[in-house]
Amino acid sequence: MSLDLETARTIIAGARAHASEAGFKPMTVVVLDDGGHVVAVEREDGSSMKRFEIGFGKAHGALSLGMGSRSLMGRAEQQPYFIAAVTSAVGGALVPVPGGVLVRDGDGALLGAVGITGDTSDNDEAAAVAGIGAAGLTAQVD
Amino acid sequence: MSLDLETARTIIAGARAHASEAGFKPMTVVVLDDGGHVVAVEREDGSSMKRFEIGFGKAHGALSLGMGSRSLMGRAEQQPYFIAAVTSAVGGALVPVPGGVLVRDGDGALLGAVGITGDTSDNDEAAAVAGIGAAGLTAQVD
Amino acid sequence: MSLDLETARTIIAGARAHASEAGFKPMTVVVLDDGGHVVAVEREDGSSMKRFEIGFGKAHGALSLGMGSRSLMGRAEQQPYFIAAVTSAVGGALVPVPGGVLVRDGDGALLGAVGITGDTSDNDEAAAVAGIGAAGLTAQVD
Amino acid sequence: MSLDLETARTIIAGARAHASEAGFKPMTVVVLDDGGHVVAVEREDGSSMKRFEIGFGKAHGALSLGMGSRSLMGRAEQQPYFIAAVTSAVGGALVPVPGGVLVRDGDGALLGAVGITGDTSDNDEAAAVAGIGAAGLTAQVD
Repeated sequence: MSLDLETARTIIAGARAHASEAGFKPMTVVVLDDGGHVVAVEREDGSSMKRFEIGFGKAHGALSLGMGSRSLMGRAEQQPYFIAAVTSAVGGALVPVPGGVLVRDGDGALLGAVGITGDTSDNDEAAAVAGIGAAGLTAQVD
Repeated sequence: MSLDLETARTIIAGARAHASEAGFKPMTVVVLDDGGHVVAVEREDGSSMKRFEIGFGKAHGALSLGMGSRSLMGRAEQQPYFIAAVTSAVGGALVPVPGGVLVRDGDGALLGAVGITGDTSDNDEAAAVAGIGAAGLTAQVD
Repeated sequence: MSLDLETARTIIAGARAHASEAGFKPMTVVVLDDGGHVVAVEREDGSSMKRFEIGFGKAHGALSLGMGSRSLMGRAEQQPYFIAAVTSAVGGALVPVPGGVLVRDGDGALLGAVGITGDTSDNDEAAAVAGIGAAGLTAQVD
Repeated sequence: MSLDLETARTIIAGARAHASEAGFKPMTVVVLDDGGHVVAVEREDGSSMKRFEIGFGKAHGALSLGMGSRSLMGRAEQQPYFIAAVTSAVGGALVPVPGGVLVRDGDGALLGAVGITGDTSDNDEAAAVAGIGAAGLTAQVD
């Protein structure tokens, strides 16, 4: 468990603070360790029913291919059949739009990923980057 | 269970009456609570084999993302890979064409969703809106 | 669609009336046609979240093997591995306790099945039998 | 979303405080709304890889049948084939040992469920009850 719970809580708090200040819609924030397993989740009031699954899919997809979900979107636009196939191959949890961001330490070591959903994909990603920054870590969006 | 059975039955009766008066094809009407679970279903004679699953997918998709299935269609036209991915992430039940309509009370609180299938998507949606209106509630189509 | 919607509604009304008079807990009643597809469902207020899936599993299991779900229970007690394997083979929807009852016409022709859940399995079955009787049809519990 | 995020966070904090004071092993705490959807999760350092899925299964199973997971264990001991079948019918997420506890308000209305895993099942349940109490709500363990 490369990303500890206190770090995950700091990331979530930072992401939510950014979203609140920016006036984003209610967010769901999912933090996974480097094995793709849940460390912490918070779904804000009014964030719809399956937002956990969507945030999980962004972060899980990012970890699956080792790139931020913004790159998965680029690939989906070029080769939709590839992303469809990988989604199936990894068990269904891969959402190829921005908001799934890899978390690295100062040496570039992979610690885990954050997946956020609720507002536009660009805003979701901005909140993830803010949260990772609040924990003193490095965000990889693509 | 935010949407009670009597309300669901009223919605179904209202939707079927609208469809009958308008001369629509045989309809299947699915009513879900705000957690996406079945409250009531009626499939009219001649409505084909898997119409329950299609109506369920419209309503379940609407609740999953917190918007009517007409908006899911718009998103599918812009980013088909996103809707494909979310369909997988939520377990397969998301049909992104009109006819999945959110049900809200007078204060805007989410009670559940109606999914209708059988005629054109626009007509399916019109029947859903009529049924929700018959129960004195507010329909959100997008 | 061998079991029409009006018949399904009559079965549901009869089953619910029996349950109400007998003081049973809140019931969920699922009616399937002879192809195992949903015709009508009603989940009473207070009947828990996944009761549709359980009632569906009773009725679907009954149709899958051509016997009431009481017989499936007998088989499960004798050969649990057989019922587990069939459950998997039919896609997961087979609940081997009483309450899944086949519906036949006066000539013995199979029309569909009713699945009820909410109280004890014996009471669930009694409500199903009452509902099928209210429609003037024949119940097969095992 | 019947159980808001602040309440979920209070439940998690209360459950973790109880576990820490009692010297329990590292815990994973999952809080679901009354539709079985994730509101908040925290997995403590050292809590193993799939603990989210186990805690989710306890809470989701409790909501599925409308009883605490301690009752699911009782049923599993009497009719293992029934619990196996229901697990399949609800999609796989049902863990029938103590630690999945329903959350009700002062009027008895169902708000959601807590699923905890990490120590013995009895200790997991005790932590859940403590967390629910910390939020001023009522725990239903069976």
